[in-house]
Amino acid sequence: MLKTYLPILDWGRRYNRQTLASDLVAAMIVTIMLIPQSLAYALLAGLPPEVGLYASVLPLVAYAIFGTSTSLAVGPVAVVSLMTATAVGRLAAEGTVDYASAAVLLALLSGLMLAVMGVLRLGFVANFLSHPVISGFITASGIIIATGQLGGLLGISAKGQTLPEIIQSLAGSLGDINFYTLAVGLFALGLLVWIRTSLKHWLKRLKVPEGAAKVVVRAGPVFVVFLTMGASALFDFGAKGVALVGAVPQGLPMLSLPNFDFETVQALLMPALIISIVGFVESISVAQTLAAKRRERIATNQELIGLGASNIAAAIGGGYPVTGGFARSVVNFDAGAATPAAGAFTAVGIALATLLLTPLLAILPKATLAATIVIAVLSLVDFSILRRAWSYSRADFLAVLITIAGTLLLGVETGISLGVGTSILVFLYRSSRPHAAVVGQVPGTEHYRNVLRHKVDTVPGLLSLRIDESLYFANARYLEDLIYNRVAADPAVKDVVLMCSAVNAIDMSALESLEAIQQQLADMGVRLHLSEVKGPVMDRLQGTELLAHLQGRVHLSQHQAVQAIIREASGASEKPTAPRLAVAG
Amino acid sequence: MLKTYLPILDWGRRYNRQTLASDLVAAMIVTIMLIPQSLAYALLAGLPPEVGLYASVLPLVAYAIFGTSTSLAVGPVAVVSLMTATAVGRLAAEGTVDYASAAVLLALLSGLMLAVMGVLRLGFVANFLSHPVISGFITASGIIIATGQLGGLLGISAKGQTLPEIIQSLAGSLGDINFYTLAVGLFALGLLVWIRTSLKHWLKRLKVPEGAAKVVVRAGPVFVVFLTMGASALFDFGAKGVALVGAVPQGLPMLSLPNFDFETVQALLMPALIISIVGFVESISVAQTLAAKRRERIATNQELIGLGASNIAAAIGGGYPVTGGFARSVVNFDAGAATPAAGAFTAVGIALATLLLTPLLAILPKATLAATIVIAVLSLVDFSILRRAWSYSRADFLAVLITIAGTLLLGVETGISLGVGTSILVFLYRSSRPHAAVVGQVPGTEHYRNVLRHKVDTVPGLLSLRIDESLYFANARYLEDLIYNRVAADPAVKDVVLMCSAVNAIDMSALESLEAIQQQLADMGVRLHLSEVKGPVMDRLQGTELLAHLQGRVHLSQHQAVQAIIREASGASEKPTAPRLAVAG
Repeated sequence: MLKTYLPILDWGRRYNRQTLASDLVAAMIVTIMLIPQSLAYALLAGLPPEVGLYASVLPLVAYAIFGTSTSLAVGPVAVVSLMTATAVGRLAAEGTVDYASAAVLLALLSGLMLAVMGVLRLGFVANFLSHPVISGFITASGIIIATGQLGGLLGISAKGQTLPEIIQSLAGSLGDINFYTLAVGLFALGLLVWIRTSLKHWLKRLKVPEGAAKVVVRAGPVFVVFLTMGASALFDFGAKGVALVGAVPQGLPMLSLPNFDFETVQALLMPALIISIVGFVESISVAQTLAAKRRERIATNQELIGLGASNIAAAIGGGYPVTGGFARSVVNFDAGAATPAAGAFTAVGIALATLLLTPLLAILPKATLAATIVIAVLSLVDFSILRRAWSYSRADFLAVLITIAGTLLLGVETGISLGVGTSILVFLYRSSRPHAAVVGQVPGTEHYRNVLRHKVDTVPGLLSLRIDESLYFANARYLEDLIYNRVAADPAVKDVVLMCSAVNAIDMSALESLEAIQQQLADMGVRLHLSEVKGPVMDRLQGTELLAHLQGRVHLSQHQAVQAIIREASGASEKPTAPRLAVAG
Repeated sequence: MLKTYLPILDWGRRYNRQTLASDLVAAMIVTIMLIPQSLAYALLAGLPPEVGLYASVLPLVAYAIFGTSTSLAVGPVAVVSLMTATAVGRLAAEGTVDYASAAVLLALLSGLMLAVMGVLRLGFVANFLSHPVISGFITASGIIIATGQLGGLLGISAKGQTLPEIIQSLAGSLGDINFYTLAVGLFALGLLVWIRTSLKHWLKRLKVPEGAAKVVVRAGPVFVVFLTMGASALFDFGAKGVALVGAVPQGLPMLSLPNFDFETVQALLMPALIISIVGFVESISVAQTLAAKRRERIATNQELIGLGASNIAAAIGGGYPVTGGFARSVVNFDAGAATPAAGAFTAVGIALATLLLTPLLAILPKATLAATIVIAVLSLVDFSILRRAWSYSRADFLAVLITIAGTLLLGVETGISLGVGTSILVFLYRSSRPHAAVVGQVPGTEHYRNVLRHKVDTVPGLLSLRIDESLYFANARYLEDLIYNRVAADPAVKDVVLMCSAVNAIDMSALESLEAIQQQLADMGVRLHLSEVKGPVMDRLQGTELLAHLQGRVHLSQHQAVQAIIREASGASEKPTAPRLAVAG
């Protein structure tokens, strides 16, 4: 029991020198990667860069204790940083104490929500974010982030939460471009692209061993940070109008929690919920993908607790909302992280870096961080989801399109909410008009198939109808229409058999509709029968008015139903009814 | 085509003396019934009583032209009146010009929404109101209305939109009870109860012919109105502090439309939508029930246009939102209404009554109207829905309970919205954890059934899994978990057959999950097969990555799948694999 909630008790017992070595190597590589990203994402969230470092210490320790993935690396990520900026930006001006404490409060609320969802086993709410919606959302967020960072690269202002706002803001301040900033930004951007695309081949040609080459490539962004800091000191960028990070408090912050202000809490509840779910979905997808590669299992509800603990820890340590990042988790996995302890070692690395780096950060050009963000988020942008959704299903395409358009034009929270709403509505709409088929017997077998797709036999006066959907409120009225119209179209019909092999549930609305159908068919002198009702559905129907008043019977199979009805008809009329051949479509 | 949108062109051609006679009789009876109800419901909506009469003229003519039901009687109804009071009461004080014109605007907006939904064939949105939710909502509304009318019966104030507010308001003004009002109220209430329960038997004993007796019973409430008006004149109730209707403008109002005020329009949009849907669902349910009794059909989308036209007409004629009422439609049907023309004749009757009655209304005690409302709405209150839902399904019970509690405690709009939200969430939750069964062969047949419910044969190394649900975003992740856990539990498994006989759809999220499952099973050396994939689902899967990379095959039937796998296994290992008997549960 305790092990379920504290997975560390499980893997901790099996910890040995070998796993320690693996974890230490992975931690070192992830630390190097995380330093510039943490600084940059904090800037993206509208927070001082060092807050990104704070958010990369305690949360990792908390996840190591409560998390179940051996590879997941938590910390600040791009999309959640953008969502934080959106949520907190409504309440306070960037750079104020209120802004920073609202971000901390957001992490706390998000952490509490995640932990409560985990304890109550509500992990299923994450399912409402369909794959296409989350893909569309991440792509649109990537575009918003990259566009916003153009401001940082050009040394001009790029305010706003939607694409039109940001573009307008950029266009309005094009005259203020600082060419020194632009030079630093383009240099950093070019160097990062080169590191990402060519450094590895280059090192290979130089016969650098593969392991070392990997570490060098990962360290590339840190190198760019130091290089531009050096250039900043050498050429006195500050005096030339290049935006620098500026003096930051040295060392780690005191552990604390923000003051609660009821109105702020209320205003942050909905954003915290959306951030929690988006963060959780992003994190669990990464964790599951990596776990499957090693045939490990992720405990969904415990992951909620792990992420919840991480966010509470982020709040206590003066950070902002965190989640499991894709790129850094893959790096962690590739580097051989064997247990969640790798995360704790990474935390130690970041803490040391924080102590050493903070004095130097003052001269770091913000353009370097903007370049880091642009490189990181452009890999998120993937419009192929639109093409793939279009070719597979118009319903999914609509959901993606609305998510992308909503996010770009109306902002992240509205965009993702519209996407979720659309996918639910589209699903309900589709199942409100279920596929139904008149079925007949495949000659010589006991199988019954669609008369429009197969060459089958039907019996005059007997309508066999297969409904390919669970019966529930959204299609209860449609079911009534369907059956009345079919029966009205053929006055010879005396028996209707509803074949329920694809009916996985019947809710109370559908039950009442079936009772009404049964009553009205009885008034017309037509009997209603059911066949192939599934066990769980039949269990529920026992004792209902429907079965008590059913004129026909419930048959185990469609074939038994047809045989029994033919037998009764021939018994009653003293002449056997031969099956009639129905050939169609 | 034109006949679809103007059903009058269809039935009008077949109109003759006999249908005219039937329609005239029905119109007379409904007119008598509608007069006191229209006055009373207008009062319930917070409007002057004559507005109820206005809302019972033009809307009936519009419905006669555009509607498809031969029996539906439209006009002011209790629940919609309460919802009007709630919506308009937020914007203006009762008795002001703004209040009345907001009610007119509400009718206009609701009419336009209904008509647009009809033209766009969006009738399916009404499906989101499940039977239990609408039952719970009507019961809770009935309680709120009846409690509110206690104020009218006691001559005290009963303000508020929720049960606690109304009770508090009543309790706070108990000291102001006017005993003359109470006497009039109790007298009217007692007389109405007696008319409803005993008058018919009494007339029967007096040997009054049944037809005439029916008319007398229907005329009872009108008789109570005139009786209390007479008493009011005789004893000068006005001087004794009994609340009277007071002077009202004589005759019918000029046709007009209110001035549009963008803010008011915006504030009324959501209430108009909710009123439209609730009104439409109430109306279509009545219309379908009555149509089925005569084997007639109702055209759902044309009904939206019919109701939309009625509400636009209500707005033009100075009324407020209307819909098809249950009691009056049943009376119309019983009285033999043969075509929608009966409604138009009723409109003439009400117009005449308006001209004759308005001078007299000044002395009518409001307590009489309160008694009329109480009698009408108590028949709506039916708590048995709670018991029935509890015994059939906890999910439906939860939706009813939340609807009733929400409506009573938070008001009509919140209540119905919570109910709809709960029923959708509960449905998604249920289908997010679908029933799944490991299946085996029923010996001697080609049928495959649940190993836990039947005595069936299974093959070692072959896992046959039947999922009883469409695969979509809400259960895509669950599906992954399910299959990984099953495969991880039995290392001997080399083939997994997913039996899709109950899978009615696969959306893009589920497709991507299946691709991930296929990939990860392949990594484990396990092949994924599909069987019994439905035609429409298979059509969609053609050309996807899933089929392109599938290690196993898609088999027409589960039996063919098992046979093929056994053949391949014996071919590969050169020794036949005998089925193993699995007996369980």
